[in-house]
Amino acid sequence: MFKKILIANRGEIALRIIRTCREMGIKTVAVYSTADKDSLHVRFADEAVCIGPPPSAKSYLKMPNLISAAEITNADAIHPGYGFLSENAEFSRICQEYGIKFIGATPEMINSMGDKATAKDTMKKAGVPIIPGSEGLLDSVAQGKKLAAEVGYPVLLKATAGGGGRGMRLVKQESEFQKAWDDARMESAAAFGNDGLYLEKFVEEPRHIEIQIVGDSRGRACHLSERDCSIQRRHQKLVEETPSPIVSQELREKMGAAAIAGAEAIGYEGAGTIEFLVDKHGDFYFMEMNTRIQVEHPITEEVTDFDLIKEQIQVAAGVPISGKNYFPKLHSMECRINAEDPGNGFRPSPGKITNLHLPGGHGVRVDSHVYAGYTIPPNYDSMIAKLIVSAQSREEAITRMKRALSEFVIEGIKTTIPFHIKLMDDPIFKSGKFTTKFLEDFDFSDLK
Amino acid sequence: MFKKILIANRGEIALRIIRTCREMGIKTVAVYSTADKDSLHVRFADEAVCIGPPPSAKSYLKMPNLISAAEITNADAIHPGYGFLSENAEFSRICQEYGIKFIGATPEMINSMGDKATAKDTMKKAGVPIIPGSEGLLDSVAQGKKLAAEVGYPVLLKATAGGGGRGMRLVKQESEFQKAWDDARMESAAAFGNDGLYLEKFVEEPRHIEIQIVGDSRGRACHLSERDCSIQRRHQKLVEETPSPIVSQELREKMGAAAIAGAEAIGYEGAGTIEFLVDKHGDFYFMEMNTRIQVEHPITEEVTDFDLIKEQIQVAAGVPISGKNYFPKLHSMECRINAEDPGNGFRPSPGKITNLHLPGGHGVRVDSHVYAGYTIPPNYDSMIAKLIVSAQSREEAITRMKRALSEFVIEGIKTTIPFHIKLMDDPIFKSGKFTTKFLEDFDFSDLK
Repeated sequence: MFKKILIANRGEIALRIIRTCREMGIKTVAVYSTADKDSLHVRFADEAVCIGPPPSAKSYLKMPNLISAAEITNADAIHPGYGFLSENAEFSRICQEYGIKFIGATPEMINSMGDKATAKDTMKKAGVPIIPGSEGLLDSVAQGKKLAAEVGYPVLLKATAGGGGRGMRLVKQESEFQKAWDDARMESAAAFGNDGLYLEKFVEEPRHIEIQIVGDSRGRACHLSERDCSIQRRHQKLVEETPSPIVSQELREKMGAAAIAGAEAIGYEGAGTIEFLVDKHGDFYFMEMNTRIQVEHPITEEVTDFDLIKEQIQVAAGVPISGKNYFPKLHSMECRINAEDPGNGFRPSPGKITNLHLPGGHGVRVDSHVYAGYTIPPNYDSMIAKLIVSAQSREEAITRMKRALSEFVIEGIKTTIPFHIKLMDDPIFKSGKFTTKFLEDFDFSDLK
Repeated sequence: MFKKILIANRGEIALRIIRTCREMGIKTVAVYSTADKDSLHVRFADEAVCIGPPPSAKSYLKMPNLISAAEITNADAIHPGYGFLSENAEFSRICQEYGIKFIGATPEMINSMGDKATAKDTMKKAGVPIIPGSEGLLDSVAQGKKLAAEVGYPVLLKATAGGGGRGMRLVKQESEFQKAWDDARMESAAAFGNDGLYLEKFVEEPRHIEIQIVGDSRGRACHLSERDCSIQRRHQKLVEETPSPIVSQELREKMGAAAIAGAEAIGYEGAGTIEFLVDKHGDFYFMEMNTRIQVEHPITEEVTDFDLIKEQIQVAAGVPISGKNYFPKLHSMECRINAEDPGNGFRPSPGKITNLHLPGGHGVRVDSHVYAGYTIPPNYDSMIAKLIVSAQSREEAITRMKRALSEFVIEGIKTTIPFHIKLMDDPIFKSGKFTTKFLEDFDFSDLK
């Protein structure tokens, strides 16, 4: 087992990793930018090395500084957390070169999953469902209609040069095809000077459902069921839960099996997440694979009693997994508490926390690096705490979350707490019947 | 279900009860003494009523003030917490008279379990094992020897007027009986002017193991397995855990069945605890029954996913229990964090908390009513937090507890944290092989 791990990250995830290392008897090295010198991860690590000033490009992303810090402190492994260099193939390769174990994916895996086209291709070959559509551009309306009939309506026509919805048309039935084709071509030619179109099945009432997997060095993988991350604002997850209110045990096993097949096809080693879109028919489609620990991993831990960081470390050290899959025994939910003003377009709200009271009690977990008197620097991600609750049912988890949110006191800055309190009372959220577009119509105007 | 509950208590247990009430949608009324006006339970309750100054006799124990507070606020139930009036038959009766539901035992049950002789008698009749011995005083050496042979050596001869070990003799075998008899009689005659002796089986290597039970208004009871509370200093529990390292599943089921028999024999309604001594042979003997929630109830919640306060409230409202027993799915441990100086005879250390950081993360629960800037009044119990961890095994729970203790920062006062940190490293504690006398030989001198 590793003797000393350098944590190439900051904030709550750095603290999260230190916690598990302590429990495993592994020494820790924190790295920090000058803006983070008062951060708890610096205080709680066994050693701490300053790696430069903000912004991140001059410190947390600066590979030579990180490698030097590991060499100076004799760390035998580096845990990258999430974000920063966690999915950087070059950093993974450099760690290999220096004989420091990178607790994450190999450069090859990161590359293969980092490129979307390669990732889809790889998963398709492994039998993982991907959104069906044209391979490359369509030649003609006839070819498009034939393909649409195969994959089933509704379909999307998309401009190959497109973005922001321009040059895109939803086609609900064959009779609409010709007009949609003409409109999309005209629009994309005008907007991008390129009228090439491709076709994709339209995912109706999409949910973002991801499967947590762990693979070991023997090429075996297991899954730890799903997380539903459909509550997103501009593709930023705000609330996650497990089990998903729309996933049956049958679908869970099907998605779990697909995720394992995908992971084993690339010999995936470590903790990873395969993200799917699930439509209203219960069909699911591969979106992407994250070759790192996710922000929302604690909800999986709460319902499986698994420590995912420990699992990452063990697998990196060559310990084989049991091969057993894990299913949720409770219902768990996470609210991301960000230093942002939800009543004002989620504008960042850095500054000094003048007063702090964390919620506690039965079924409540808080992962946070902040404390009363701490000044949130403006340089980084605005997440300051993860509030995680667990209960016997989804309904109980929501009432527990409301209770915990109501006793969470953070003074001196704005946070997303008022948004979460409102969400917990929202009838659509409570019903469990929402899509990834739910927050597009949410009224944030009364959040103070 | 109740609409509004008055909580006749303070500190962490008042906050604990408020939390569950919030989750159940029940309004809460806090009561507080003038010394507690800045306490969190006052801040988090829906209403708060000042009931007088310290000491407790003028406020938390003053029944007319509590009843008035309940009447003024239209509370339909009172939760007494632990301590204070939680096992006061008179208060339970007065609540009945005023038509306010007392969330606890009836006056009859409190009386029957409050008197030790009556309690033992009742339990014996219900088939619960009690420590065997003479019924009343011994007449002669011959009678004593006969009885000792029946209950088995070693036995204790005890002065009926005795206390503090005077007039008490341990008799390991029959050949020692006559001398022990003469010595004990002479000593007790000299000390108390009364040479009456009685005999009790000596409990070898005793452990304090208690069974959590819940009974409903239909006379049915279930158990939620044991808590091991053998880590005590001068009969004050400091650390509790479940499951007990010395309790097998067979013993658990036997003790659970005995506890249920005892509870059902008195038609016990509500949450209660039956405390046993368990000897080195795995034989167990009834000590007493607590007709209230215990300080250490969270460890049971953590391993069974049960909310015991919710259960108390539901049972008080007439909801029947399922009748199912609950067994530990994890290992959970609680350390009592007291404002005391463990290096100085556990002398109380009230005062202002100048800096506070609570531990968090996977498997960590904190129940506490204090915050940075809070001044601990000198008038009450010194417990300021309960740190509860859960893990897959006892070994993991200990390492997690060490980790959580190491990141628990409380500045401005002395606490028992250094004692707990030392205990978690103690080889005897880690082995699980200790008795209730373990702390008698513990070296507290180096605790700073």
